Amino acid sequence: MDFKELERFLLSCEDAVILAHKNPDGDTLGSAFALCRALRKMGKRANVVCSDGFPERYDFLYEGCEGDNTLIEPKCVIAVDIADVTLMGRNLECYQQEGAVDLCIDHHISNKHYAKQTYVDGSASATALVLYELFRFMNIDIDLQTARCLYTGISTDTGCFKYENTTQKAHIAAAELIGMGVDFSVINRRMFDLKSRSRIMVEQIAISNIEFYFGGKLSMIVITKELMAKSGAEDSEFDGIAAIPISVEGVEMGITVRQRGSQTYKLSVRTTEKHDASEFCRNFGGGGHIRAAGCEISGELSDVRERILELGAKLFGGER
Amino acid sequence: MDFKELERFLLSCEDAVILAHKNPDGDTLGSAFALCRALRKMGKRANVVCSDGFPERYDFLYEGCEGDNTLIEPKCVIAVDIADVTLMGRNLECYQQEGAVDLCIDHHISNKHYAKQTYVDGSASATALVLYELFRFMNIDIDLQTARCLYTGISTDTGCFKYENTTQKAHIAAAELIGMGVDFSVINRRMFDLKSRSRIMVEQIAISNIEFYFGGKLSMIVITKELMAKSGAEDSEFDGIAAIPISVEGVEMGITVRQRGSQTYKLSVRTTEKHDASEFCRNFGGGGHIRAAGCEISGELSDVRERILELGAKLFGGER
Repeated sequence: MDFKELERFLLSCEDAVILAHKNPDGDTLGSAFALCRALRKMGKRANVVCSDGFPERYDFLYEGCEGDNTLIEPKCVIAVDIADVTLMGRNLECYQQEGAVDLCIDHHISNKHYAKQTYVDGSASATALVLYELFRFMNIDIDLQTARCLYTGISTDTGCFKYENTTQKAHIAAAELIGMGVDFSVINRRMFDLKSRSRIMVEQIAISNIEFYFGGKLSMIVITKELMAKSGAEDSEFDGIAAIPISVEGVEMGITVRQRGSQTYKLSVRTTEKHDASEFCRNFGGGGHIRAAGCEISGELSDVRERILELGAKLFGGER
Repeated sequence: MDFKELERFLLSCEDAVILAHKNPDGDTLGSAFALCRALRKMGKRANVVCSDGFPERYDFLYEGCEGDNTLIEPKCVIAVDIADVTLMGRNLECYQQEGAVDLCIDHHISNKHYAKQTYVDGSASATALVLYELFRFMNIDIDLQTARCLYTGISTDTGCFKYENTTQKAHIAAAELIGMGVDFSVINRRMFDLKSRSRIMVEQIAISNIEFYFGGKLSMIVITKELMAKSGAEDSEFDGIAAIPISVEGVEMGITVRQRGSQTYKLSVRTTEKHDASEFCRNFGGGGHIRAAGCEISGELSDVRERILELGAKLFGGER
């Protein structure tokens, strides 16, 4: 599928429902609402749906779309930023059957091509960047609110232009979008700097429990159920702390251990270029990417820690 | 002074010493080494000096410049990113007298014009961005190492394109610089994500001492000398924690109080768009910017806290 075909699809579609993925982020929501606005501008009815609803954190993306966001009987189903049907979430199960999705627009190279038609640009920093270029191609007027949605998608998926997936095109699109008046510093503060009080406390708990081994090359944070209960924070607030152990200077492998059951522990492993997180996790029946991987280990916490450090000794050698 | 005159200056200068400001950051060092490399490419002798030396954190900027960085007897003194002679630091006192600096290139609108000639672009996100545009104007070949220096200056001064001072030109320059092969994700990880072990501990101490008032609208962190001594961290490692209180959701004014003498406390005040930090600090004889200001209060800690909260009550009203 190319932009010409994508344009033809959008011009001819009617009553579209746009799907965002579960645990929605800035890219899936920014893309979904940008596309929704574009379709409405073309005189069509369009809606956005998400299995987990629309978090307050992203409410600035919905402006101008809230009122009309009643469920329509869709004639056309479009998934944005959803690489696989399993990522739709339990409330969108009806769209997970074969043939249920008419079009998927995505930037994940791993896209499963579950939709009848798929446009994937694996080199794009974000799905919002694909849409930005499509809108340019189609000469769709990008109004300020659409620009905010597109900017947010690009900014959040690149860690504010920080990560390896940031491209020249991402910077050039950002230049044009901020030129339209996007309040990018307010958006970025909200997306990257603001933390809830309980999140701050969770980070403090995590940091106060950090352990270092092998001359500071391996760091580990263990979060037990007891600790979680004491913090008063919700389980989901502990998501993302896996970034903490690897953020310490000199650390080559950062491991976060979270207790799941009474004798089960989930590991999140992050590495610098010196080690393979996926290989480490395969030793415990897990897997993932070279820099970020995961696995589960069963047993008493002391045994779990022992097994991790035994494997660590093979990688880092020397004294603990 | 315009680019034409700036070009003429650089073409005719000989044996240049380039000054970076004290407590050097990515912009002053990135700019200084980029300019140094450009002058050397033009066949001139050039050096960079900084009152505080060159921190290890920025050592990737010095590549290719280290060896030649012996002191030359300068015929020409160029200050980069230094708005005022007081920012040169005690080891560069010899350049603080009137007429000691031949040229200053800067982006601070507050520049004091202490040099014989000054080029200031107050609309530029970074001094490195001024240099990038100058090099383009002069058709100077920007090699990979120079590109790394320029990118680092732009990225660090804009908080990785996050802050209000990020311009379209900053994004476009970044697009061109990363197209030259700059390892921007490695640089950004080092500049923004990596923290020393003691820095992590300092943040933990800060967070564990956070206080909230007026329904969470005012937050305050008090760091006493006793606390600093207990942490084992150096005083300078506490720099930057002023960003923590204002990073909590719902907070409109974040205050960091650091003990200086036995009865003196230094306040760093940060605000959202709802309040004026500078006005707040003027009440205690201080000042600064609308979003970031500072002042000193003398007295017992309990009195200092009381005075802050009394003024806070006028702004936020209601119960503490």
